[in-house]
Amino acid sequence: VTKPLKVAVAGLGTVGAGVLKLLRRNAGHLAARCGREIVVTAVSARDRNRDRGLDLSGIEWFDDAAAMASRADAGVVVELIGGSDGVAHDLVRESFRVGRHVITANKALLAEHGAPLAAAAEEAGVALAYEAAVAGGIPIVKALREGLAANEVNSLYGILNGTSNYILTEMRESRRDFADVLADAQAAGYAEADPSFDVDGVDAAHKLAILTSLAFGTKTDFGSVLVEGIRNISLQDIDFAEELGYRIKLLAIARRTPHGIEQRVHPTMVNREAAIARVEGVTNAVMVDAVPVSATVYQGAGAGEGPTASAVVADILDIAAGRRLPTFGVPAAQLVDLTPADMDQHAGAYYVRLTVRDQPGVIADVSAALRDENVSLESMLQRGRSPDAAVPVVLTTHDTVEAAMKKALARIASLDTVLEPPCMIRIEE
Amino acid sequence: VTKPLKVAVAGLGTVGAGVLKLLRRNAGHLAARCGREIVVTAVSARDRNRDRGLDLSGIEWFDDAAAMASRADAGVVVELIGGSDGVAHDLVRESFRVGRHVITANKALLAEHGAPLAAAAEEAGVALAYEAAVAGGIPIVKALREGLAANEVNSLYGILNGTSNYILTEMRESRRDFADVLADAQAAGYAEADPSFDVDGVDAAHKLAILTSLAFGTKTDFGSVLVEGIRNISLQDIDFAEELGYRIKLLAIARRTPHGIEQRVHPTMVNREAAIARVEGVTNAVMVDAVPVSATVYQGAGAGEGPTASAVVADILDIAAGRRLPTFGVPAAQLVDLTPADMDQHAGAYYVRLTVRDQPGVIADVSAALRDENVSLESMLQRGRSPDAAVPVVLTTHDTVEAAMKKALARIASLDTVLEPPCMIRIEE
Repeated sequence: VTKPLKVAVAGLGTVGAGVLKLLRRNAGHLAARCGREIVVTAVSARDRNRDRGLDLSGIEWFDDAAAMASRADAGVVVELIGGSDGVAHDLVRESFRVGRHVITANKALLAEHGAPLAAAAEEAGVALAYEAAVAGGIPIVKALREGLAANEVNSLYGILNGTSNYILTEMRESRRDFADVLADAQAAGYAEADPSFDVDGVDAAHKLAILTSLAFGTKTDFGSVLVEGIRNISLQDIDFAEELGYRIKLLAIARRTPHGIEQRVHPTMVNREAAIARVEGVTNAVMVDAVPVSATVYQGAGAGEGPTASAVVADILDIAAGRRLPTFGVPAAQLVDLTPADMDQHAGAYYVRLTVRDQPGVIADVSAALRDENVSLESMLQRGRSPDAAVPVVLTTHDTVEAAMKKALARIASLDTVLEPPCMIRIEE
Repeated sequence: VTKPLKVAVAGLGTVGAGVLKLLRRNAGHLAARCGREIVVTAVSARDRNRDRGLDLSGIEWFDDAAAMASRADAGVVVELIGGSDGVAHDLVRESFRVGRHVITANKALLAEHGAPLAAAAEEAGVALAYEAAVAGGIPIVKALREGLAANEVNSLYGILNGTSNYILTEMRESRRDFADVLADAQAAGYAEADPSFDVDGVDAAHKLAILTSLAFGTKTDFGSVLVEGIRNISLQDIDFAEELGYRIKLLAIARRTPHGIEQRVHPTMVNREAAIARVEGVTNAVMVDAVPVSATVYQGAGAGEGPTASAVVADILDIAAGRRLPTFGVPAAQLVDLTPADMDQHAGAYYVRLTVRDQPGVIADVSAALRDENVSLESMLQRGRSPDAAVPVVLTTHDTVEAAMKKALARIASLDTVLEPPCMIRIEE
C-alpha cells in the first residue's frame, strides 16, 4: 500500500474551501483513481476564525504561508493566495527550496515568472502544476501539454475572462451600457470591487501568456501581450456589430506569424454565426488550431468554486499517481525566448466608430484620410440625420496593415468635424 | 540519457502511415516533450509492396502481426488493424503476454473486451492506451480519465460518428434523401463500401461503451447499449424538425439514472439553437456534465489521418515519459458491473411521423390511442390535404414513459388508416 499523499493548502477562500470539501466528499473515488489516500495536513489563511463551513480539526494551522511551506508535514503545497509577487511568490519559492511539489491557480504569478519558476521546479525535482490557472474547470493545460503534445500549434484563441464576457453578453441582451452592467455584476458578485484585472483585459492576458508558452514552447512573456479591455465598448458598438453580422467578444489570441508570435487581448468583432460568438455569459472557451489534429475546441465554466476545485484536485491526482511533466511541456532549458510580432505589421480588418458633426464634407474628409493611407473601405454606415449635431458614423475596412490604420485614425481624429476619439475594434473572421 | 522508446506498428493504412510520418516529421519536438527518442523498429501489414509514401528501410517487416508482437524489438505495440476479435485481439493478448505496452485505435475491441483487457494489461504491468479509439483527435479519453478525474459524472452525450453526422448535415443542406447522400459519401470516401457500422449506430455505440466506463467506472458493456441508426430518417423528418425548432443528430448518450445507467445511440431531435445542433459535417463533439466542474465541451475532427495520428502519438508520449494510468481510470478489479437502465422506464418527449390515409376520423383514432396510454400530445401537424391519399401527420409529445409510448405506437400502427410503420424520434432538451 502506498502512503497517503499529504497536502498543505495556502488560502482558504471559496476555492481553497472548495478543494478541501471536494477531497473529503470524493475521498474514496479519488483514492481509487490515484492509488493512495489524499490527506490535507496543513492550511494557512489570514483569518483563523472565519466560518468556512469546514471542520479543520486535526489540520495544522499556519498564520504564515511561507512558514507552512517550510514546516508543514506535506509533499504538496497548494497555493491559492494569488498575486504575481509577495506572499504567493515567496511561498512557491520556499516550497521548491524544501522539495515540495506546488499546485497553483495563480495566473499572474505564472505569467510574470513562468520560465524562472519552471526552471526552479525542475532544479528542485518537483512539479509545478496549474490547471486551475487558465479557464477554470476546462482541462486545457492538460490538453495542450499532453493531449495535443504531438502537434505543432499554429494559433489559439479564446474567451478567458468570464466577467468580461458576462458584461458583453448582458449589455447586448438587456441593452444596457457598460457602467450599468458592471455595477450590477459587482453587486451580484460576478465582478470584483476593483474590476480592472477583468475588464481591462489583464486577467485574460495573464492566462494567454501561459497558453502561449504551452502552445509554442516559449518562455512566458507577459510584457509583450497587447492588452486592451472592454471599458470603451458602447451599446452603440454592440448594436452596429449586430447590424454588420458580428458579435463583440474580448478575445485572447496567440498566433505564430512570419514576424514572430502575436499575443493579444482585445475586443474583437467575430462572425455572429461562429462558434465563439455563441459562447455567452461566464463561460470560457479555447479554440486550438494545430497540425496534424486541425481545430479542436474546449469549453466550460471559467471560474467558481466547483470548476476551480476540479482542476486543482486533478493536479493533485497527477502528483499522487507519480505522473510528471515539465512545467510548460518541454524542459525549462529548452524553452526559447519569445520573438513578439510587431502589431504594426499585423494585417486584418477593422471596425471604426466615429462621432462626427453632421455636416457636408465630413465623409469626404474621412474617406480621403483612409485613401491616403491605403486603407480600403468595405462599408460605411450613417444612421439618422441630425444637421450640425453629433452623429455616429461606422466604417469597416478590408484587410489593412495596422500601422496604416493607426496613421489614418490619427489623421481622422485630428479633423475638426470628428468630435470624439475614434473607437477602433479589430475584426477576426 | 534515457534510451529510445522502440515502437512496433501493426497496420499501415492511412492512420498507420500517418503515425510513422508524424513521428518522423516532429522527431525533435517529440523527443523534447518526452525526454527520449521514439523509434519505429517494426511494422506489420498485409501488403508489403504497396506504396505508402514512406521509406521503411531499417524497419523490420512482419507479415504476421501476432508474430511481431512476440518477436519485434519494441517496448510498445501500436494496433491499427481493427475488429473486435481475430488478429487484433490476438495481437493485443500476445503483446501483454510478452510484457509490451499496447496503444490501439480499436473501439470495437475495447467496447467488446474492455474489462478483461484492462485486467490483462494490469496483470502484465503494461499500459493499454486508446485515445484514438474515441472522437479522433479530441483528447476526450485524457479529459475523462485525468482532467475531470476529481468529478462524479452525471451524464455525457455527443456526436461520435462523423459519417452519420455528415450525412444528416448534407441531407438538410442539400435537401437530398438518405440513399442519395450516402452514395455520394461513399464515392467521396467519407463512407465505407459497407456503411453499416457508421449509419446503423454501431461505431458510435462502441465509442459510447468506452466513454461510459471512463465516466462511471463500470465494466464496458456494449451489449446493453440501445443502438438505432439513421437509415430511417427521411427528408420529411428533417424538414419537420426544422419547422418544430429542432435539428436531428445521431446522439450517443450515457446517463446515470435512479434505475441504472442508460447507454443509447439513436437519432435525436435537439433544439436547433443548442451547441450540439451546430456541430455539423464530420466534426465530433462530446458534452460532459459532472460535479463539481459542471458542463464542459470538447470538439474536433473525429477521424482521418492527422487527428488519429495526433491521438496515437500522444499515447506514445505518455508511455515514453513513464506516465501510467489504469485503463479505465481505476484499477480493473474496482470496475463495477454496469446496471443497465430499462429503456421502458425512460421518460422523455417524442416526435412521431405517421403516414396516414387522408380521411375523416384518422386524427381522432390516433389521439384516442395516445390518450388511452396516457401519452400527452404537445403538437400535431398535418401539412396539405389530399383526400384518400397518403399524407404525413407529425406529432410531438410531452414527457412520456417509453413503455407507454411503445404501446400507443403499436396501437397506432395497427390502425387501417395508418399506412406505414410510424417513425419515432426521441427529443432531448
